[in-house]
Amino acid sequence: MAKQERAIRTRNALIAAAAELFDQDGFEASSLAVISARAGVSSGALHFHFANKAALVDGVVDAAGERLQLITRHRDALSLQVLIDASHDLMQGLARDVVLRAGFALSARPERTAAARDLRRDWQAWVEATVERAACEGALVPDVTPRDLAATVVAVAAGLETLGGGDRRWLERSTLTRFWALLLPCVVSPAARELFVALGRTGAESVPRAVPVAPPRIGS
Amino acid sequence: MAKQERAIRTRNALIAAAAELFDQDGFEASSLAVISARAGVSSGALHFHFANKAALVDGVVDAAGERLQLITRHRDALSLQVLIDASHDLMQGLARDVVLRAGFALSARPERTAAARDLRRDWQAWVEATVERAACEGALVPDVTPRDLAATVVAVAAGLETLGGGDRRWLERSTLTRFWALLLPCVVSPAARELFVALGRTGAESVPRAVPVAPPRIGS
Repeated sequence: MAKQERAIRTRNALIAAAAELFDQDGFEASSLAVISARAGVSSGALHFHFANKAALVDGVVDAAGERLQLITRHRDALSLQVLIDASHDLMQGLARDVVLRAGFALSARPERTAAARDLRRDWQAWVEATVERAACEGALVPDVTPRDLAATVVAVAAGLETLGGGDRRWLERSTLTRFWALLLPCVVSPAARELFVALGRTGAESVPRAVPVAPPRIGS
Repeated sequence: MAKQERAIRTRNALIAAAAELFDQDGFEASSLAVISARAGVSSGALHFHFANKAALVDGVVDAAGERLQLITRHRDALSLQVLIDASHDLMQGLARDVVLRAGFALSARPERTAAARDLRRDWQAWVEATVERAACEGALVPDVTPRDLAATVVAVAAGLETLGGGDRRWLERSTLTRFWALLLPCVVSPAARELFVALGRTGAESVPRAVPVAPPRIGS
């Protein structure tokens, strides 16, 4: 293994170990010594990559930010469906990917400076821009202010993230699907209703057929 | 001052000081010594009322629970309006009342046992029962499943609580009003639409006139 490749693997192992411990035991309770032991590297190797705990936090947040960029990447589809799909991908990511989950939690910690990366703020900015595009595409009824729809989506995602920390059922695909099924009929113009899938297209691929907007009942 | 009255005042001062410090500096950083100093009482007096930090957490959570009971008390009105009013009162409480805010944050901490009081769970149970009553009163369109509406309200409240920790604007009355104005037209039966005030009746008292459901624009 080349030296550079080994360094990248060590760095990633430290980020994964830190995310797991922050997520499991909390930020304060997780010492650098325990993190380096968990990653299977020496304390010296940890300090080579991360000068202190704050630098390690930045590393986890940046790694989570890369995942968020994948979730919100450009997709060739109607913007409102891109938003529905990305919201599902974010919830599935928070449920399954400890780096994404820890990164979101860490990026909102009060000791972070205003200049530090805030993933919820990044997500909010993307949601706002995407809803604006959906409005330009004529998907929304004129009564709906894009800003209000964006704020509701951001609030619901933050709420599911928070509640999901205590009870993972809040992060299940069916929970967010029911939110979209409730909301879509009142924000989407009647002519466009058939175009959007509350379940998300990523989820629709794994079920027999796509669930249309406002189905009789989703889930049990 | 009677001895009993003095004891109650000391206990309340300790709860207020603990809530302020937990909210400001975080749970781990707030020592019992700093809390008793902030409350202006001796360390011995603290230990007379609270055996340890966990007991003090229970004290803050119970005090916040009393406030939540006031917010969700019986009101003689249509259940959906009672829900709208209570959701506004909860957000205003989280913005202004440090005991309520700290109690919500503390009651969800991972080290709390399953049997300990969880204010978000209490709130969720009340929202679910109130939405069920609203359905029985005929306020909801038949397409809307009460459980889905309740889950959305619970998620939005948890999201605004979380986001409000970083930016108080999320807790402003106008933010939640816009959510209700967006949601009400798609969940309330047409015959009942005029009956509900998205701004909440508690807020409507302080403005020139009540804002109807789905006004042209609320806020700037």
